[in-house]
Order: sequence, then structure tokens, then C-alpha cells
Amino acid sequence: METMGRHVISELWGCDEETLNNVNAIERIFVNAALKAGAEIREVIFHKFAPQGVSGVVIISESHLTIHSFPEHGYASIDVYTCGDHIDPNTAAKYIAGSLGAEAEETIEIPRGTGPIRVQRPEANAL
Amino acid sequence: METMGRHVISELWGCDEETLNNVNAIERIFVNAALKAGAEIREVIFHKFAPQGVSGVVIISESHLTIHSFPEHGYASIDVYTCGDHIDPNTAAKYIAGSLGAEAEETIEIPRGTGPIRVQRPEANAL
Repeated sequence: METMGRHVISELWGCDEETLNNVNAIERIFVNAALKAGAEIREVIFHKFAPQGVSGVVIISESHLTIHSFPEHGYASIDVYTCGDHIDPNTAAKYIAGSLGAEAEETIEIPRGTGPIRVQRPEANAL
Repeated sequence: METMGRHVISELWGCDEETLNNVNAIERIFVNAALKAGAEIREVIFHKFAPQGVSGVVIISESHLTIHSFPEHGYASIDVYTCGDHIDPNTAAKYIAGSLGAEAEETIEIPRGTGPIRVQRPEANAL
């Protein structure tokens, strides 16, 4: 398998607080995001914190998707990492941002497994 | 909980190929790395691919550690993300690099949850 991968890091602000605290909703969003990107799901694990917040991961054949949510701040920290070049991690990241109702987003993409790390396409967008 | 976090991304090359293909060894290394950093472990899941390679995650109260290994290339792709300021993700990342026998490492650190994304401390080191 080729080492080349694309790692999208998204900072989502102004998200729907209720969704950010709903572990079942977040798991559903992440599974759908992986499938929409064309990924093959291997493991799914989401954890609800007390009093609030959710952390979770979907391990895909092509790497992973993760979230850490902070409902009290309307903030979600997202990673979508896909190996190979047949999947676009931005497909999943955009679906997640939309599903969480993010009002503002900042995203960078980092190539993985190709040698020196270069950060690509910094974006700070109001959605 | 504060949104502020530190996300260390490490590209490890020249790792021990046998270790990179040993799902039990990698799980043990990652659990130990989380504990050495002072993290609280919540979920542990590691997946062995056929014919080779391991993907896995440790979800900690403070965020996560992940790996994707490519034994045939001696390459491992590592993320250590810790929220708050009482844990240094580099403690875990360095332990992992040493345990996998990495001969060369490139690491960047990305602040999370603090507003605009800035990439800090690019490093490319022969170990």
C-alpha cells in the first residue's frame, strides 16, 4: 500500500450545541461522512463525556476520521485522514461541517507519507 | 472544558518492520505512550490489515493518539492530540518514535481550538 495520504484538519465554530452533545447523532454523521467519501469502514467508536462533549473515531481502510466536541463553546475539532488518491477527505469534512451546522470553519490540508511535511491550502471561511 | 489543544503530527521512517506489523505490540506501545504522558485512557481500538499494516487509536480524556503503519515501507504515521495544557503530546510522540525504532522523524505541532491555525516547530530529524 502506498504511504501517500491527505490529512484535512478542520476547526468548526458556531456549531449546533445540541448536536455536539449527542453521541448518537455524531456517530451517524461520521459514518455517513465516511461512506459519502467512498471509504471502507473498519471500526467505529464514540465516547460521551460527562457533563458534556463527545470524542470519537471511525477507522477506515484508508486511515481515520476523528472528532472532539465542546458543546459549551459551539466548537468541534475534526480530522479526516485518507490514504491513497482515490478519496477526497474534503468530501467528508464538508459533510461534517454542514451536518454540525458550523457557522465558521478553518481548514488546512497536510500531505502525509510523502516526505517533508508541507501545509497546504489554509482557509478561514465564514460558512 | 477549554478548547485549547496541541496536535503533534509525526512522520516516522526507518521503523522496525516487524513491530509495525504487530498489532499487539503497537497497542501496548500506544497505551504506554498515553500513560507516560499522563493521559486518562477512555477507549482503545487497534485493527490489523491483511496482508500487512496496523491502524489504531487510543481515545483519551484529553483527545487521541492514532497510528497507521506501513511495514513494507518502514513508515508510521502518528498523531498525538492533547487538549488542555497539563499534558505534553511530545512526551507520547517521542516514546512512540523510540519504541518503533524510527531512524528518521519529521514532526510538526498544530495548536487546536485557539482560533486561526498556525503550524509550529517544523522539525526534520535523523534520530
